[in-house]
Amino acid sequence: MRIDWIGCAAEGNRLDLDMKDASCATVWPVSQVPAWDMESDVVVVGLGVAGGAAAIDAARAGAEVLVLERASGGGGATALAGGLFYFGGGTPIQKACGFEDDKEEMFKYLMMASGKNADEAKVRLYCEENLEHFDWVVGLGVEFKESYHKEKTTLPENDDCLCYSGNELAYPFLSHAKPAPRGHKPKIEGDAGGLLMQKVISAAEEAGAKIVYEAIAETLVTDEQGRVVGLLAFVDRQPKFVRARKGVVLAAGGFVMNKEMVRKHAPELLACNYPIGTDGDDGRGICMGEAAGGAIMNMSQGLLSTPFYPPADHLKGILVNGQGQRFINEDVYHGRSSDAILRQQNGKAYLIVDDSLYGQTQAFHKIVAVEETFEDLEKALEMPEGSLSYTIEFFNKHAAEGEDPLFHKHKSYLRPLSSPPYAALNCSTDKAIFAVFTLGGLDTLPTGEVVRADGSVVPGLFAAGRTTAGLPREGSCYSSGMSIAGASFFGRYAGRTAAQGADAQVR
Amino acid sequence: MRIDWIGCAAEGNRLDLDMKDASCATVWPVSQVPAWDMESDVVVVGLGVAGGAAAIDAARAGAEVLVLERASGGGGATALAGGLFYFGGGTPIQKACGFEDDKEEMFKYLMMASGKNADEAKVRLYCEENLEHFDWVVGLGVEFKESYHKEKTTLPENDDCLCYSGNELAYPFLSHAKPAPRGHKPKIEGDAGGLLMQKVISAAEEAGAKIVYEAIAETLVTDEQGRVVGLLAFVDRQPKFVRARKGVVLAAGGFVMNKEMVRKHAPELLACNYPIGTDGDDGRGICMGEAAGGAIMNMSQGLLSTPFYPPADHLKGILVNGQGQRFINEDVYHGRSSDAILRQQNGKAYLIVDDSLYGQTQAFHKIVAVEETFEDLEKALEMPEGSLSYTIEFFNKHAAEGEDPLFHKHKSYLRPLSSPPYAALNCSTDKAIFAVFTLGGLDTLPTGEVVRADGSVVPGLFAAGRTTAGLPREGSCYSSGMSIAGASFFGRYAGRTAAQGADAQVR
Repeated sequence: MRIDWIGCAAEGNRLDLDMKDASCATVWPVSQVPAWDMESDVVVVGLGVAGGAAAIDAARAGAEVLVLERASGGGGATALAGGLFYFGGGTPIQKACGFEDDKEEMFKYLMMASGKNADEAKVRLYCEENLEHFDWVVGLGVEFKESYHKEKTTLPENDDCLCYSGNELAYPFLSHAKPAPRGHKPKIEGDAGGLLMQKVISAAEEAGAKIVYEAIAETLVTDEQGRVVGLLAFVDRQPKFVRARKGVVLAAGGFVMNKEMVRKHAPELLACNYPIGTDGDDGRGICMGEAAGGAIMNMSQGLLSTPFYPPADHLKGILVNGQGQRFINEDVYHGRSSDAILRQQNGKAYLIVDDSLYGQTQAFHKIVAVEETFEDLEKALEMPEGSLSYTIEFFNKHAAEGEDPLFHKHKSYLRPLSSPPYAALNCSTDKAIFAVFTLGGLDTLPTGEVVRADGSVVPGLFAAGRTTAGLPREGSCYSSGMSIAGASFFGRYAGRTAAQGADAQVR
Repeated sequence: MRIDWIGCAAEGNRLDLDMKDASCATVWPVSQVPAWDMESDVVVVGLGVAGGAAAIDAARAGAEVLVLERASGGGGATALAGGLFYFGGGTPIQKACGFEDDKEEMFKYLMMASGKNADEAKVRLYCEENLEHFDWVVGLGVEFKESYHKEKTTLPENDDCLCYSGNELAYPFLSHAKPAPRGHKPKIEGDAGGLLMQKVISAAEEAGAKIVYEAIAETLVTDEQGRVVGLLAFVDRQPKFVRARKGVVLAAGGFVMNKEMVRKHAPELLACNYPIGTDGDDGRGICMGEAAGGAIMNMSQGLLSTPFYPPADHLKGILVNGQGQRFINEDVYHGRSSDAILRQQNGKAYLIVDDSLYGQTQAFHKIVAVEETFEDLEKALEMPEGSLSYTIEFFNKHAAEGEDPLFHKHKSYLRPLSSPPYAALNCSTDKAIFAVFTLGGLDTLPTGEVVRADGSVVPGLFAAGRTTAGLPREGSCYSSGMSIAGASFFGRYAGRTAAQGADAQVR
């Protein structure tokens, strides 16, 4: 079965070429290019934060830069996001708010947060240079307020900047790295991704990058030695050959919108009902790179979430599975508890709160039972006698002593459930909003160069953002801000590396 | 970092070529082939059961067949295996042993057993034609005894044939497909894989296939249109260009022996300490196919196992996690319970048995505590008071009534733990033998043709066995016999499809 990408090859027509053979899963030999319709030193595919950052730094390095964006406006998934950056090691904001942080502690934490597949070279480079990257972001005109948002949330709803945006304060992370708040949100109420992308796009234009909208990259053009020397794109639905003298940077997003790709690589994620991204996150960039010899990796991983807080008081409730058992310290980052629900508890979970803790969540989790006693709650949830009720009694007994011997929830969220009535909110994958985006893609060096399965470089090909396996690589330990931070930081590297390269010798 | 494949390129030398550029992660353009050193209609890479079956059927279809095997003898991982086939729908053995089975019930079961990523077309084709495949295996000289092995085990230790080799009798599978025993072991005591491969290799030779040992395939040779027309191999360490007029069949095993590949695609599996396969399972075949444009899929999946039975009585014990909670019906196939230990319980689990149930396991699980009471066992395992002891009391109470309201273990394995002393066997990934092999690889059609990410065929390229994503695709629902059955069945298809193809037009 052919994957149903949003077809553009079929729409194009040129009398001199048989366009029906164009596919992002193959390459186009340069010998079959009749003439270049456009050209530039560096061609960037995609104008999210990764592509924007690549364009800015490539242009500032003196390269002629052309950005192809398939939508009618730039922004990508970043424009839909909260806009947090993961910065640390002593940023001006951390200092102003009175937090000490240390590069090594940040490194230790980010190695855990990147997951089992962490790329130590990328994590190390990011920690070494992230303060410079902070300055670069500020240099785009992005403001960060000198304010700390204390209440645990998924994103500060006001214009506060600094927050704990991951598992820094939760077991077991807490005991392996000294915590500090490292989530940095640009100064605006609520989501900051749109504002951020306005600044990025303006900066790219100011640096001299030329942006073409409604331009869908379809197929990389390679020479006989396998070097990428350009691409075939559909601009306003017309096929155009675009020469890239120095290189192509793929920054075209992830693949969460391509159900067939998700099935093939990450079938567990099909249970998530709320993919986060734009239509462009259809995996096309990943497939283009793969067709040119690039290796893909980490394709089974994603960040998923059914945010059952705020209200932060919900973290004082308990999460139980279909058997009425607890399974995690509830005070972890929502991505971690949600990952456990899907991957470890077969997608079934309830949040149990008492009357003093309850509030509506942003994901509108449904109350499925409200009862005066634990025993009645257990019955209402059709759990066997002595299952959920014993779980709550056991929890309560230890919580009263400030302890959670089973899962090590932090003292500050520990207190017995004791204000009836008691409610159960359904956090199951088939009953709640379960958001997801992908964390797998092309394998790249920290420089942004795309590599083959044997680690050798595909000449002329670069990538960044969700088209790659970047900084965050596992939903169960992810922190908010890692994607935008990593995508922009390594996007800049990709742009600079491409700009520094020698011109391909093609006609 | 370059992946450390067992290097062969570096060892080869030819005055007319720079061999250092040869890599399984790239292709070799036919224009750079000075001359063909060997040629055949169909070239099969690897002589496990998939390659052997491909060679037999390609040769029987009239093609000239050349098999390249990197080891000094054939057999592959199959020769190390139990040698079960998953056959059903009314085999002669099932009938002789008095079992009714039905093609549709087998199909329903195999769709579940293949996992979330099940390939319906492959499962359907296998169910439709597996009786013919049974005859084909018998035709190789493989005998199946008309005997049923009743006791639940991982593999009949005697020469019995028929057994339940998966989750057919366990919740939730039991309620979705009418169970029948479908594991068929060739007639020999203990492991039958070696015997099976002797028959396969003899049959391949009889059919006229030429086998060359100590021949490592390195790089596929492609023409300008991307068709695979041969390969570069190192035969007795000397580089040889091998023309494949009709096609190359990659049947070179999986990638479990390549730690770097496992890390990139299935990092969870790194926790398993006992990879099952030969040195050849280093992913080379997968990478060769990928370099020629083939898509890879399902790469995160594997079958893993810490077989805590036999003795079958152990299934009457209970598995608990690090918190003393049960998490599964223990009577499932060992691959399913082991998968749950690793992926759902963070790798930590104990089997709790009483004195009447205990026996040594084939994996020599260590006893970490023996106590007279549940409370003392709980203390010995450093679990909080009222955790494990309540779990056992809850289990016992319901087991006495023939019920398992939490996990639906079958009545036949349900009875209270009541004969002290009670023992805990450590089934954790870091303390027990945890076996693993991979279930991801090249994406293929049922015909054996390798496809690109867009579903289009890579001309001249075929694959089967663990080099592909085949019949079984998920360890949590796997049944023994699916790998060898699928590898041989779809290996035959690959061989026949290749044999029927038109010759490539290359010099």
